[in-house]
Amino acid sequence: MTDTTTIADIRITPVAFADPPLLNSVGVHEPYALRSVVEVETSGGVVGLGESYGSSIHVSRLKMAAESLRGLDVQNPYALRQAVARALTDDRTSGGDGMAGMVTASSTLDRVYSPFEVAALDIQGQQYGVPVSTLLGGLARDEVSFTGYLFYKWAGHPGAEPDRWGEALDAAGILAQAETMVEEYGFTALKLKGGVLAPEAEAEAVGALADRFPGMPIRLDPNAVWSVETAVRVGRRLEGKLEYLEDPSPGLDGMADVRQRVPMPLATNMAVVAFDQLPESVRRGSVDVILSDPHFWGGLGQTKLLAGVAQTFGMGLSMHSNSHLGISMAAMLHAAGATPNIDYACDTHWPWKDPEDDVVAGSPFSFDAGAVAVPTSPGLGVSLDRDKLRRLHEQYLASGMTERDDTGYMRRFDPAFDPSLGRW
Amino acid sequence: MTDTTTIADIRITPVAFADPPLLNSVGVHEPYALRSVVEVETSGGVVGLGESYGSSIHVSRLKMAAESLRGLDVQNPYALRQAVARALTDDRTSGGDGMAGMVTASSTLDRVYSPFEVAALDIQGQQYGVPVSTLLGGLARDEVSFTGYLFYKWAGHPGAEPDRWGEALDAAGILAQAETMVEEYGFTALKLKGGVLAPEAEAEAVGALADRFPGMPIRLDPNAVWSVETAVRVGRRLEGKLEYLEDPSPGLDGMADVRQRVPMPLATNMAVVAFDQLPESVRRGSVDVILSDPHFWGGLGQTKLLAGVAQTFGMGLSMHSNSHLGISMAAMLHAAGATPNIDYACDTHWPWKDPEDDVVAGSPFSFDAGAVAVPTSPGLGVSLDRDKLRRLHEQYLASGMTERDDTGYMRRFDPAFDPSLGRW
Ligand SMILES: [Mg+2]
Ligand SMILES: [Mg+2]
Repeated sequence: MTDTTTIADIRITPVAFADPPLLNSVGVHEPYALRSVVEVETSGGVVGLGESYGSSIHVSRLKMAAESLRGLDVQNPYALRQAVARALTDDRTSGGDGMAGMVTASSTLDRVYSPFEVAALDIQGQQYGVPVSTLLGGLARDEVSFTGYLFYKWAGHPGAEPDRWGEALDAAGILAQAETMVEEYGFTALKLKGGVLAPEAEAEAVGALADRFPGMPIRLDPNAVWSVETAVRVGRRLEGKLEYLEDPSPGLDGMADVRQRVPMPLATNMAVVAFDQLPESVRRGSVDVILSDPHFWGGLGQTKLLAGVAQTFGMGLSMHSNSHLGISMAAMLHAAGATPNIDYACDTHWPWKDPEDDVVAGSPFSFDAGAVAVPTSPGLGVSLDRDKLRRLHEQYLASGMTERDDTGYMRRFDPAFDPSLGRW
Repeated sequence: MTDTTTIADIRITPVAFADPPLLNSVGVHEPYALRSVVEVETSGGVVGLGESYGSSIHVSRLKMAAESLRGLDVQNPYALRQAVARALTDDRTSGGDGMAGMVTASSTLDRVYSPFEVAALDIQGQQYGVPVSTLLGGLARDEVSFTGYLFYKWAGHPGAEPDRWGEALDAAGILAQAETMVEEYGFTALKLKGGVLAPEAEAEAVGALADRFPGMPIRLDPNAVWSVETAVRVGRRLEGKLEYLEDPSPGLDGMADVRQRVPMPLATNMAVVAFDQLPESVRRGSVDVILSDPHFWGGLGQTKLLAGVAQTFGMGLSMHSNSHLGISMAAMLHAAGATPNIDYACDTHWPWKDPEDDVVAGSPFSFDAGAVAVPTSPGLGVSLDRDKLRRLHEQYLASGMTERDDTGYMRRFDPAFDPSLGRW
């Protein structure tokens, strides 16, 4: 342990960035998406960055954890994790998973530890003069392919002007959205967020996409709002049209049932979101593909572990995304770049974000044929723009938001809205 | 990639060191144990070290692999492993597992890749100024506890003087050996290599050890020469006396059968020795504890992966040893030091080696209460003594040995010796 890698200060800043009215099974995205920016500074003056959810419960847990990390060495992520675990011992709050109720079973320790681990690796990389991908075992690919992530959406937030994407409430709207996204970003794979319209209508949209983009891998994610019978019916109808069907039905049992009866692989970021769910999932044969996500699987090291478990047990691996900023983008790129068995294009909400709304300096990411190069400069390869950070924090304060609440926002316009799982 | 971390040269040197006549289920240790010393040198002149098996088939595979590694960057172990995999594509030889027939199902790629990965991490650590344990996620412990590894043995090699340990062919001999070992090294756990005498005689030795060292964890390893019925009978007799019973019977089925019917945990370094055996082992419930070993699980990174799989699936983790030199000792220390869930004292043959017979400079390892400190200097923390390397290579040449053949050596004195599994 050298003095220069001792944690001297940690700053946690909640931020908000503009988000379009994207529809999902639990409601609709609010005008702002919340994130937290974690800065870990060593006594040597090196700053490492992490990014996580922005809900107030999560942010207060991050602050509890941060208190316990001062004086520790960023070169020992194991010790950092132990300290976070101890710091959370007395935590009696619930929620704060940042997923608007869509996922609740992920590990609180892993979610809270994650941005600190990423920041620690960022510092190690800067200290050693190597990119984070090197600390994860070396690059398996120079660039990471993403899906064009399609959403049913309103033309604009109620009371505001329509956004540049406009309305998408049927197959034609989704098709137009896909055209634009493929044209602008060059995506070679598509994902449709479902769970919004009647299942047959969403199947129709997938069919339209498959017809328009022959051979392009397409995935559909109704976020477990279908019953097993509905999932089987729709799954069979979509034979040959889907790369995988993501979370058609709730739970390890529901997924295992559907999986026996539909022709395509099943993927999940709901039924299996933590290491303690893996044995049961393997035993029941619930899923074919697991969606990794450093934010709730406990950072980049544990994302690599998840990848190893998936490979060992014959499961495929993809990557999940929430609405995110550039720090998370860098972390996801290093993780996917250094993980040989990420067999699928990763998900990202990136195109839905205003390019001006970020906290990282410059414009470090560009899409070429739907792929983004893994940063090669030391550490994560991104740095903080303090003016941007200040602006997004002010935006957070001005928004008055402290939680993500897609359901509450939807109910302002549709009081009878029902977000329950398996409801179709 | 910086030029200074490009692989410029690789040297592979087979060596031999004196080994006492230790008895096991397949015969007896020959007068010399064989190892290979791998030196990876970068264009920047930094040398990284690895150690592996010394059989000629393995050494020739290492040389094939080495050819493919020149010009690659040690900072990308993933790329090194891919190159080794390609280099072995045309390999049609068999054997070379270095385990004298006791284990044959380990992965050839993982065995061959392992010393290169260790050497690459050694170089990375030196380059970044951090110990290898830091590259593995940070130390979970500063020192690693080992077992006193007890063997039935002859007084000396036939035709030679008795060695300092003398004969151990019954419970009294094992007890005397344990006394000496505990006194000299301070071990707080013991392992008896069984599969040599009739099972009841080995159970008697365990009983004597348990009486003499109350409360000390003891393990017994008959290397799968017991039938299921014998294993169940002896296992039940040893209730309360064993920390775990290691490989009582052959195969995933045999182990699963025994496991249902004996009171103590079952451990293995025979039934599960590669990642592709893990799913079946988990499905059948074959074992409680897996013995990691960087030499056949594919290096230090994959040892960490194995640890994560074990933790995820509720299995314990220990560490296996072959007769080894100081480079392997350093690698084992970094692996165990950086692996939180190594829940058991690790095995080592260290006390059986003449302290003068090594290839590392100085005497970097000392036992205190059965534990050895994890090296803290950059890289593995050991360096090569070229005079010692030369002497052990000359010893290799003079020995005339090219393979480990415990069975052949035993049959020179007992032509009817039967090494088959499950024979008791
Ligand atoms: Mg999903
Ligand atoms: Mg064994």
